[in-house]
Amino acid sequence: MSHPLVDFRSDNCGRAAPELIDALVRANNDTALGYGGDALTASLQKRFAELFETPVRVFPVPTGTAANALALAASATPFGAVYCSPEAHIQTSECNATGFFGSGTKLVPIAGIHGKVSPEALEGAIAVAGKGLAHKSQPAAVNLVQATDLGAVYGIDEIAAISQVAHAHGLKVHMDGARLANAMVRLGCTPAQATWRSGVDVLSFGVTKNGGLLTDAIVVFTPGVAEDLGFHLRRAGLVWSKMRFASAQIMAYVADDLWLRLARQANDAASEIAAQLESLPGVTMAAPVQANELFVDTAPANLAGLESAGFLFQRRAPGRARFVCRWDTSEHDIAALTGWFRKQAAAS
Amino acid sequence: MSHPLVDFRSDNCGRAAPELIDALVRANNDTALGYGGDALTASLQKRFAELFETPVRVFPVPTGTAANALALAASATPFGAVYCSPEAHIQTSECNATGFFGSGTKLVPIAGIHGKVSPEALEGAIAVAGKGLAHKSQPAAVNLVQATDLGAVYGIDEIAAISQVAHAHGLKVHMDGARLANAMVRLGCTPAQATWRSGVDVLSFGVTKNGGLLTDAIVVFTPGVAEDLGFHLRRAGLVWSKMRFASAQIMAYVADDLWLRLARQANDAASEIAAQLESLPGVTMAAPVQANELFVDTAPANLAGLESAGFLFQRRAPGRARFVCRWDTSEHDIAALTGWFRKQAAAS
Amino acid sequence: MSHPLVDFRSDNCGRAAPELIDALVRANNDTALGYGGDALTASLQKRFAELFETPVRVFPVPTGTAANALALAASATPFGAVYCSPEAHIQTSECNATGFFGSGTKLVPIAGIHGKVSPEALEGAIAVAGKGLAHKSQPAAVNLVQATDLGAVYGIDEIAAISQVAHAHGLKVHMDGARLANAMVRLGCTPAQATWRSGVDVLSFGVTKNGGLLTDAIVVFTPGVAEDLGFHLRRAGLVWSKMRFASAQIMAYVADDLWLRLARQANDAASEIAAQLESLPGVTMAAPVQANELFVDTAPANLAGLESAGFLFQRRAPGRARFVCRWDTSEHDIAALTGWFRKQAAAS
Amino acid sequence: MSHPLVDFRSDNCGRAAPELIDALVRANNDTALGYGGDALTASLQKRFAELFETPVRVFPVPTGTAANALALAASATPFGAVYCSPEAHIQTSECNATGFFGSGTKLVPIAGIHGKVSPEALEGAIAVAGKGLAHKSQPAAVNLVQATDLGAVYGIDEIAAISQVAHAHGLKVHMDGARLANAMVRLGCTPAQATWRSGVDVLSFGVTKNGGLLTDAIVVFTPGVAEDLGFHLRRAGLVWSKMRFASAQIMAYVADDLWLRLARQANDAASEIAAQLESLPGVTMAAPVQANELFVDTAPANLAGLESAGFLFQRRAPGRARFVCRWDTSEHDIAALTGWFRKQAAAS
Repeated sequence: MSHPLVDFRSDNCGRAAPELIDALVRANNDTALGYGGDALTASLQKRFAELFETPVRVFPVPTGTAANALALAASATPFGAVYCSPEAHIQTSECNATGFFGSGTKLVPIAGIHGKVSPEALEGAIAVAGKGLAHKSQPAAVNLVQATDLGAVYGIDEIAAISQVAHAHGLKVHMDGARLANAMVRLGCTPAQATWRSGVDVLSFGVTKNGGLLTDAIVVFTPGVAEDLGFHLRRAGLVWSKMRFASAQIMAYVADDLWLRLARQANDAASEIAAQLESLPGVTMAAPVQANELFVDTAPANLAGLESAGFLFQRRAPGRARFVCRWDTSEHDIAALTGWFRKQAAAS
Repeated sequence: MSHPLVDFRSDNCGRAAPELIDALVRANNDTALGYGGDALTASLQKRFAELFETPVRVFPVPTGTAANALALAASATPFGAVYCSPEAHIQTSECNATGFFGSGTKLVPIAGIHGKVSPEALEGAIAVAGKGLAHKSQPAAVNLVQATDLGAVYGIDEIAAISQVAHAHGLKVHMDGARLANAMVRLGCTPAQATWRSGVDVLSFGVTKNGGLLTDAIVVFTPGVAEDLGFHLRRAGLVWSKMRFASAQIMAYVADDLWLRLARQANDAASEIAAQLESLPGVTMAAPVQANELFVDTAPANLAGLESAGFLFQRRAPGRARFVCRWDTSEHDIAALTGWFRKQAAAS
Repeated sequence: MSHPLVDFRSDNCGRAAPELIDALVRANNDTALGYGGDALTASLQKRFAELFETPVRVFPVPTGTAANALALAASATPFGAVYCSPEAHIQTSECNATGFFGSGTKLVPIAGIHGKVSPEALEGAIAVAGKGLAHKSQPAAVNLVQATDLGAVYGIDEIAAISQVAHAHGLKVHMDGARLANAMVRLGCTPAQATWRSGVDVLSFGVTKNGGLLTDAIVVFTPGVAEDLGFHLRRAGLVWSKMRFASAQIMAYVADDLWLRLARQANDAASEIAAQLESLPGVTMAAPVQANELFVDTAPANLAGLESAGFLFQRRAPGRARFVCRWDTSEHDIAALTGWFRKQAAAS
Repeated sequence: MSHPLVDFRSDNCGRAAPELIDALVRANNDTALGYGGDALTASLQKRFAELFETPVRVFPVPTGTAANALALAASATPFGAVYCSPEAHIQTSECNATGFFGSGTKLVPIAGIHGKVSPEALEGAIAVAGKGLAHKSQPAAVNLVQATDLGAVYGIDEIAAISQVAHAHGLKVHMDGARLANAMVRLGCTPAQATWRSGVDVLSFGVTKNGGLLTDAIVVFTPGVAEDLGFHLRRAGLVWSKMRFASAQIMAYVADDLWLRLARQANDAASEIAAQLESLPGVTMAAPVQANELFVDTAPANLAGLESAGFLFQRRAPGRARFVCRWDTSEHDIAALTGWFRKQAAAS
């Protein structure tokens, strides 16, 4: 094709932020004890305690799937049920990881809009779950994806409401924060408010999708939750011997609010596109655009046209496309996409 | 302490080779499809086929433990037995990873010297294993660590002899090549000779210990072995979305024989130390120094003395120490260690 | 209470058929090789090949849950998906057994009426499952419960239609035949027609619910399916050393059509109750009564009234009750239940 | 062959005691709630509390393998190590059950004589296990087989010594009591002394080998150990719906000291044989005959001769045979075996 490709496929198609690369390069000095016994990993523990305003335990892990599955396996029981949205990444996109790590732990999708879990649906599901009956998967945890897999963002009060139901029944609250920074930019709240102050017990802390390279992390807030996580991680082959190169990335990621700046760039791009598209006929948003993703419902012919024109994106249904904005989505990318839609609208 | 520390603790305490860092930095351009759909990962497949002179499938994975456990789980059955040395990394240092990934797969240590498995011991173990009896763990695979966990190196003929026994009984041959480069330098053979031509079915290809940062790899040689490995990896949360940053490291690692040059530096350092220590009284080698590790038997007081003098190393038994040389072990380090021993010998 | 209790709670609340008890008593003679090496278990293999008119492998197992979970684990992959009805026993009543035995194998409920899976829903689910995509649970098997968990019975043509879809996409067909005899009585077909001739690859052969005591069985029809089941069973602690006492029960169960006679008694009882209740106002059946279970929708007050009157049954929802008829459900039981409803109807 | 076979193959080749059969037959009356909700299972709980003079939880399970694996899985962690004798049944004869149920739990054989674990070996193994190091399987439990798999019996003081070491380091003590009755007869102690008073936390209570049919049991002594066992059992398909038929067997087994009488008959037979054989040349016992098993070392030609003469037994090594006596081993059987040996000795 003669025209350049414009890439809205996924966060993980993007580049790493130069600051993380630089930190990784700088970490390559002198020798250091392996498996997290190094100074950088020690400083990471301290830094996250400051960041979240509470003692935490933080474990860099290679992928978000590993973070989710291990956080849940170490929090739940092998005879447990984990409630989640039907759209949740753990339900749709992580093969059988939760069941594998949890030795059977079962996912139970429950209702909610825009990729969210609703507190009422959670309450209802627990009520009919058969607590104490051995032939029933026992309610163990709830999984919230922030931002959701349809691009919406849970309000602080929504998280708190779900946590209240969960804790009242002895369930743990796990947040899949693959896009936590994007959600926080939207919410304008502190990391503490976004998580443990709202009831989150354990967090998959996303880095990769927002300018990272090869690491995400698990952050444990609640004493007594996931106590043995270190052993679970090692048994699962998820502990790097040269951990400092992972810790360096995460330290750079949260330094000087870099993570929020990167996320803001991505969110702003998505907002700008949404604002322009929403005014056009034949284009509607499947969910409110509150983070860096747009789920656009439009004529299937439009999707084929976009592809012919060199736009890269995901098809989610015959007439639905996902466009993901990244920290490095350019003004040119935005103009190209919105321009195409405007032109199309004018022609029809 | 006023004196600088001299670090012989482990391969993974060392720095990454600048070439790998540079490659990783260079990989950070443009966008690319995630989960291994990128051009660098495609080139890695091609490059390894050339390197090993046969079609292979290669999967970057975060750690050697993950490589070992997944390679075995995807090759063996959940009711299978994996034979290994009592010194093998999978037996001593990977928590319960083999059993976890294999849903019960059992490790059965068998005899051999210097961290090796002997073909006779393997033959004997299979003979009494009770093949076909449902109450017995069924012989499924044999694990060879190359170089061994005591610093020795299997000869090509030794690997072939073990493979012959294994294949005659339907077992798969897995090589834990965490230090494959070190072994190959010693053997002076091709990658093909070191592996599949000698009967190896699946390989944990070590990068981290020899100048890598955050990735190792699994290489599958034999069609029909580990067919479903891609699914196993994803279910285990071991597939990076930004895979290109891992593939870039491995491409640089094998470019222009870098991996062998790095290993040669480490091996040469170990040889030099061994040559000097072996002539001293009160110092013996627990195994032949054929790669980059020395297992030194000496008076416990000597070990305490070394520690006081600022040397970092691992104690393996009251009178046994492990010293690991790396690609970046300096002449100064070598001189310091050998000097200390010589001085000690002179004083006694 | 002065009135006797009338028990419609479950099949498993009932007595064993005297014929099975007698057979078990008779099996207690002389010595016999353990773990299925005895003559009775050998005769069972032969008997089932005759019964099903094809070579089969048959394995007595202690419970239906064990039969279901092991049959699925040995047929599917650990990264696989098993499609089933939302009402299926494996989904609602077996804790996390499928995921545990399958090391993560995932249950995916799909649509259908009266506890059935519909072929269209299966086709649709496979179409969007993402075959070959590593982040997706891979379509592996479909589970049919015969009779269904709502008391309906699949027609032969319905089973064949589902099997056709399954096999076209490489899925295995598992039938949970906890109430197979009840279904066969309804269908008036041969065991072969009810199973492998209609595409069933592996069967959980129910005994316990229909006059058995302590054993059910797995029957494998398709060569190459569940090849390693014997090892899976042993590893799961599911192989009795004194197997002959289980085999004896099953031999008696199928001798002289006993299983069908027992099931017919239970079905007839259910039919008689249904016929009488259906004519009454305020009582409707949630699903057609085609086997030995009735799911009755009526006013909650009626359910409370029944309980006060000494009837034992399960509540399934505020206004829904399950009544299960057994081979030993008596005319008195039937008359008591229908009489109560009639009296209630007359009074209102 | 014209001569009758004389069967010393295994405990599980024998008949069930008529008392257990009778109890099972008597249990077949009226209806009863399933899955252990029946009156017989309730009485079993009460009866075992009396028997063991302490509150216990008791769970009938189909097999000893299931009892062992589940008791260990529910007591240990998935990253844990279970210490046992190299001769232990869990190590030699249960396929990969411990690892499967434990999601990786590892067996670590340690030294001891006659199939026992020695407290010194246990202390030593824990000392080098690397407690707290994530790459090491963490000491979790010790498994004692009583009587041992070589026919010896732990003294009360031996059990207490092992328990003391185990508890001092936070390990649980699991007793595989497949032949507990045989051991108790030897020891002449109470059930309490044989188990929890000597430090046993959880017991596999053997029934099958000593006159049972289709059930063994798990008995939990220590509060807080195996708390969730009921859920583990259900998820593993190990809970019979018609539990009363299993509970009835166990109730009969312990009624009027039947279990001890049966075991005494078996032990006495073994003692009598041992007494006669020990005086003969060319015959030695591999371990003291303290329960119902004899491990006889003799010329391989003798073993072939025995087989030709119609004796059934197990070969354990070229010159080692196992002879198992049962409650129904007859005087004729004893005379035949000892007669053959005497005749053989006279002829040579």
